[in-house]
Amino acid sequence: MGKTIGVIIDYLTDDYRRQIDAAAAKHGYATRYYPDSRSAVGNADDCEILFGHCSQKVIASARNLKWFCCCWAGVDRFCKDELYQNPKCLLSNSSGAYGVTIAEHLVMTALMLLRRQLEYNELIRTRGWDTLPGTIHSLYGCRITVLGTGDIGTSFARRVKAFCPARIVGVRRSVKPADPAFDEVRASAELDRILPETDLLVMALPNTPDTVGILSRERMALLPEGAYVINVGRGTAVDQEALADALNSGHLAGAALDVVVPEPLPADHPLRDAKNILLTPHVAGNTTLPYTQQKTLDMFFEDLENYCAGKPLLHGVDRKKGY
Amino acid sequence: MGKTIGVIIDYLTDDYRRQIDAAAAKHGYATRYYPDSRSAVGNADDCEILFGHCSQKVIASARNLKWFCCCWAGVDRFCKDELYQNPKCLLSNSSGAYGVTIAEHLVMTALMLLRRQLEYNELIRTRGWDTLPGTIHSLYGCRITVLGTGDIGTSFARRVKAFCPARIVGVRRSVKPADPAFDEVRASAELDRILPETDLLVMALPNTPDTVGILSRERMALLPEGAYVINVGRGTAVDQEALADALNSGHLAGAALDVVVPEPLPADHPLRDAKNILLTPHVAGNTTLPYTQQKTLDMFFEDLENYCAGKPLLHGVDRKKGY
Repeated sequence: MGKTIGVIIDYLTDDYRRQIDAAAAKHGYATRYYPDSRSAVGNADDCEILFGHCSQKVIASARNLKWFCCCWAGVDRFCKDELYQNPKCLLSNSSGAYGVTIAEHLVMTALMLLRRQLEYNELIRTRGWDTLPGTIHSLYGCRITVLGTGDIGTSFARRVKAFCPARIVGVRRSVKPADPAFDEVRASAELDRILPETDLLVMALPNTPDTVGILSRERMALLPEGAYVINVGRGTAVDQEALADALNSGHLAGAALDVVVPEPLPADHPLRDAKNILLTPHVAGNTTLPYTQQKTLDMFFEDLENYCAGKPLLHGVDRKKGY
Repeated sequence: MGKTIGVIIDYLTDDYRRQIDAAAAKHGYATRYYPDSRSAVGNADDCEILFGHCSQKVIASARNLKWFCCCWAGVDRFCKDELYQNPKCLLSNSSGAYGVTIAEHLVMTALMLLRRQLEYNELIRTRGWDTLPGTIHSLYGCRITVLGTGDIGTSFARRVKAFCPARIVGVRRSVKPADPAFDEVRASAELDRILPETDLLVMALPNTPDTVGILSRERMALLPEGAYVINVGRGTAVDQEALADALNSGHLAGAALDVVVPEPLPADHPLRDAKNILLTPHVAGNTTLPYTQQKTLDMFFEDLENYCAGKPLLHGVDRKKGY
């Protein structure tokens, strides 16, 4: 049995296939393309490597798997040891490919909240034409806190900096040097002291035991009246009932959620009717951008070099940490 | 009769009033505040200077007016010589105060168009939760052309540059050195050669004889299939019937108009039902931002110094040119 790379890519094109074939051939691998996960389950025993949008079932059934390179950034579903027949199987993700698209989503939703665009949309939809009473707000002079200083948080900070906010504070588990786009980086242990000075809270965290429920009811109360919250990480990070309460009471002026629990969000879920909520159906990391697609491939090719040279994976995930 | 400055400010606060009184007193002026234009008509003969949100009628009735400092950026309504009893009356505008808020509107609407946010809004409004078929687009790699390289165009270019577009071309009447945020500045005579290489066309032009109808049916056809158009200048710049056709035929992928003809846009106007159109009711330059308000005052104070020193106004408008 020759060495094989199994590939399941939602957005496979002839060009991408040629690139993958060339990279595989360079290292003596054959390629095997599956149209979807279902067709790969129980059918991928010859794959030493799997690359792409694989389901848990595919991973669980691949007996000889040594490395799964996942095309998503969030890999919480793939961090349980018992999923793998080979306990030493490597896992890598595509964190680094989504910063561009998710940062654009973040700036867009931040401005939509600050400028009350949901209300203006509704006014136009009902064929009106008026200036809303009350005020709008601006990124200019805004105090921004970003939970998570990885690719997404950093790509956002670099873009939003051009709007002259008062300051951008990055918050991460432990303080390490971060991108100069952040005016300051602080440890998550200090979060409770940072929240009262935050006008816009942006959450871009992976789903780990540490991040579940991190925006609790108590912490929401620490945000100043009229603050805004945006979450593009995982829905588990937010106490959703508390968020709906904070929006409906007016304590928070608005929130944008691209991730929720559960997904899809039921049609009658209370979050649907919360005041000033901007919901999107987990599309911030939309994979239809050529940039995102090519970057995902390039990161795989980079780590294929590392894998074949016996070096550590650049995009490797510590299954215990979850990122 | 002492020297008097008449003031009509929509967003007058005690603080703003104190600032205006202090600036006036410094130069030996009394101040007179009118709650609105109606109360000032025929009642402002003692005003040498008028500052604020004055109607044409106020200006026409003020017999001893020597300078009207207008709080709006677009002053096309105030450029006719016959409006003034004193033919030498000076006019200045507040162009320079609106760049921040209008640039935020421009980035927001650009991203909403590129990311198909109108369709996502509708999907969520009807309680759905899906990824739309087809693709979204990005500012990353986008070829952007900005008509008008004044405060608004420049503030936009500075912000959008952080999103890594392929290039930002500024277009103005005559080529002069512009802000380094523009990769290139070209003369409007070259517009027909620039349009075919434009993915996103942003229009921030004053209403002058030269700009009326500048985006004609013929020029829209020069834009590549799938291009986007955003207008925040004046509605007269766009052939609206041609725009509706270009949207409905799919030649243009989307358009965002904050200014239209007429305003308010009638409920049954064909633009209301054009495909992928994002309408806002002339609120891009929303004056509720403290930044915009204070900047407008500061610019007036700056020119009050110039006026009293017999120097040219920094924000003076050439009534013949219209800006």
